[in-house]
Amino acid sequence: MEFFKGMGQDAVKDLYEVVSHEMEKYQAMNLELNMARGKPCKEQIDLSDGLIDGSIDFAIKSDYRNYGILDGIDELKTVFADVLKVEKEEMIIGGNSSLNLMYDTLMRGMMFGMSDSRRPWIKEERVKFLCPVPGYDRHFSICEALGFEMININMDENGPDMDQVEALVSKDPLIKGIWCVPKYSNPTGITYSDEVVKRLASMKTAANDFIIMWDNAYLVHDLYEEGDQLMDVFAESKKHGREDRIIMFTSTSKITFPGAGVGMLATSKRNANRFKQQMGYQTIGHNKINQLMHARFLPSTEAIKHHMEKHAEIIGPKFKLVDQILNEELDKYGIATWTKPNGGYFISLDLPQGCAKEVVNMCSETGVTLTDAGATYPYRMDPKDSNIRIAPTFPSIEELELAIKVLCTSIKVVVAGKVLGQTYQAGA
Amino acid sequence: MEFFKGMGQDAVKDLYEVVSHEMEKYQAMNLELNMARGKPCKEQIDLSDGLIDGSIDFAIKSDYRNYGILDGIDELKTVFADVLKVEKEEMIIGGNSSLNLMYDTLMRGMMFGMSDSRRPWIKEERVKFLCPVPGYDRHFSICEALGFEMININMDENGPDMDQVEALVSKDPLIKGIWCVPKYSNPTGITYSDEVVKRLASMKTAANDFIIMWDNAYLVHDLYEEGDQLMDVFAESKKHGREDRIIMFTSTSKITFPGAGVGMLATSKRNANRFKQQMGYQTIGHNKINQLMHARFLPSTEAIKHHMEKHAEIIGPKFKLVDQILNEELDKYGIATWTKPNGGYFISLDLPQGCAKEVVNMCSETGVTLTDAGATYPYRMDPKDSNIRIAPTFPSIEELELAIKVLCTSIKVVVAGKVLGQTYQAGA
Repeated sequence: MEFFKGMGQDAVKDLYEVVSHEMEKYQAMNLELNMARGKPCKEQIDLSDGLIDGSIDFAIKSDYRNYGILDGIDELKTVFADVLKVEKEEMIIGGNSSLNLMYDTLMRGMMFGMSDSRRPWIKEERVKFLCPVPGYDRHFSICEALGFEMININMDENGPDMDQVEALVSKDPLIKGIWCVPKYSNPTGITYSDEVVKRLASMKTAANDFIIMWDNAYLVHDLYEEGDQLMDVFAESKKHGREDRIIMFTSTSKITFPGAGVGMLATSKRNANRFKQQMGYQTIGHNKINQLMHARFLPSTEAIKHHMEKHAEIIGPKFKLVDQILNEELDKYGIATWTKPNGGYFISLDLPQGCAKEVVNMCSETGVTLTDAGATYPYRMDPKDSNIRIAPTFPSIEELELAIKVLCTSIKVVVAGKVLGQTYQAGA
Repeated sequence: MEFFKGMGQDAVKDLYEVVSHEMEKYQAMNLELNMARGKPCKEQIDLSDGLIDGSIDFAIKSDYRNYGILDGIDELKTVFADVLKVEKEEMIIGGNSSLNLMYDTLMRGMMFGMSDSRRPWIKEERVKFLCPVPGYDRHFSICEALGFEMININMDENGPDMDQVEALVSKDPLIKGIWCVPKYSNPTGITYSDEVVKRLASMKTAANDFIIMWDNAYLVHDLYEEGDQLMDVFAESKKHGREDRIIMFTSTSKITFPGAGVGMLATSKRNANRFKQQMGYQTIGHNKINQLMHARFLPSTEAIKHHMEKHAEIIGPKFKLVDQILNEELDKYGIATWTKPNGGYFISLDLPQGCAKEVVNMCSETGVTLTDAGATYPYRMDPKDSNIRIAPTFPSIEELELAIKVLCTSIKVVVAGKVLGQTYQAGA
């Protein structure tokens, strides 16, 4: 006998009798003890409460300082399910960056495909993505990093040109998605019209795994009392059984701390369950303390609205100032048009063709850094070289006034120079 | 003329003269104004200080609440560069999860390849990975998710069987890496010997993009005053010009808050620069407030050591208790062997072949949840069905005592039952 060294069969039988009864006794105790994972105990975690503030009780439904809860805490889901008009089961709360969630979503599309993909995207001959322009440079960078072919779609005051979009997606199964910043779009500041939203939600696509990357970054970011109204794309898509198409993203980056907010996504339950399963390989869960701090600081839609009014008080005057200076300096010459958004973070400025790069360079040489000309286009190529993105929030009012005056002077120098066939040289 | 509506050429000339001078004036002002990104201003960010504690000054070198600093703040790099014995330029600080950094590293290996890859790994016929067993289940799950073929490597008290490792990697260019938990290994608790470290650092590999996933999760997690000493694999690898092979990971998950700590990686500067470039598409930066809180709470190697002594005071007695009960209950029967680690989070228990699953199930039916039998092996297949991972940290001393007694009784019931050819049935 290999085990129970030196014991005879009878001795083992006796032992078996004893331990079987012992076992029955334990089984009658209704124990609930978990030693499955290497989780530190509460006392260990208490050791680090000095990190934040020992007086905060982080044990709500479970100890939020410990591991677990892959898709986010219930308290914060409750708040943002209301804001986003989704069910909690349709949400995933992530780390501090919604961009990270977007990147990971497309990375997973490449490696594993979407819910209805016939194969991982990387196994397709090519992946194409529609990019309304001008748009958000970081969206386009992700596509570039993953080798997607980007197709420009014109934007107007209603959103992307839906005739163009429908004509493309109805024919080409390699077109796997479209980027949208539907409210206070980056950089034009426009909000998609109801018609555009309806057509996006219902259109037929040759690819049955087509997705809409709905980056609702500015959903509560009104500058004035009367904000734009965005139609609910998710509700619309459900009417047509197309909710797997919609992947909505938002974050508190421009509500609380840009670098330490909370990013989240919402999509169909089918997608959400699939994403959670895939996320389970990547992480045990995101920072729930930060999530809880947010749920407490922003406990309701009403609280968020009130908080965003304070943002508007700070940045509203900056947007007005930019518009006023552009008006004073440029309007009479007819050499520029610009947007007058009701929210968001940007003013989009269009110059005569072939002038944007030169203006941005001239500003740069003068110590005024603007977003690179072309950055708002795929591959950083503005085909008309005419668009400049103005981001008025960060500078102080005084700095902003000076910066926009420099910008206006640069524009006048460059455009007048072009008309006269002259090139400006400092001190010439 | 298209622009300057109604103005004659002379009027434009006059204007050009005026604005050129204006431009020169601005250029002489040495301005430094940045409007490139849609960054909220300080006053906006101040609005949310209630999230944490308004009295904390988060503006150190820059406003850590705002966007930016992709690879982590200098203060925390200073602390952990000392702990890890690396240069700051060799480090990347991430979010709350080192697992996430590992997953992303391998995901990027698949999509983009490593520094010396001839092509992205996904373009290879297959990707194989060496998995010392028993090992960490989440490492193996990542491999499984990415479709890697996992090859078991035997572990002994010195670490992975290096004869086996060298024989494999020297021949097969599709073997792209190996998982290592080099100190207080999960679950056996052993620390790699100097010889194993040296051979890993210097061995020749058929794949020139072979990587060592060096998950140093328990690097400062001594249970007793005399901790194990782990040789510096990075320094060793540099002696042989093989530092691109080493990717070290660690985190504060088992130092501060498991769910809200800071994960980080360290590797060659060449790799680090490449990773940063790739990470730049994924995020603007991780949560720097959490990083700063950590740098302040753990300002030095000495502070970390002191803090970890407090952990040891809490969990050291738990490890001793488990060892004591296993000794009392099982030693005399010769039906189990187990490890007696000097640190880390686990005790690894080996039973007679074919018993582990049954024991874990019996415990589970009795309300004692253990890590699934097999979980510490690739594909959850323990070829001998003999290994059980004990994680003693989370339960209280009282719960732990009960749980281990249940475990011991289950072992006796199962093994004696096997010897007698009997199957235990409650109440039978």
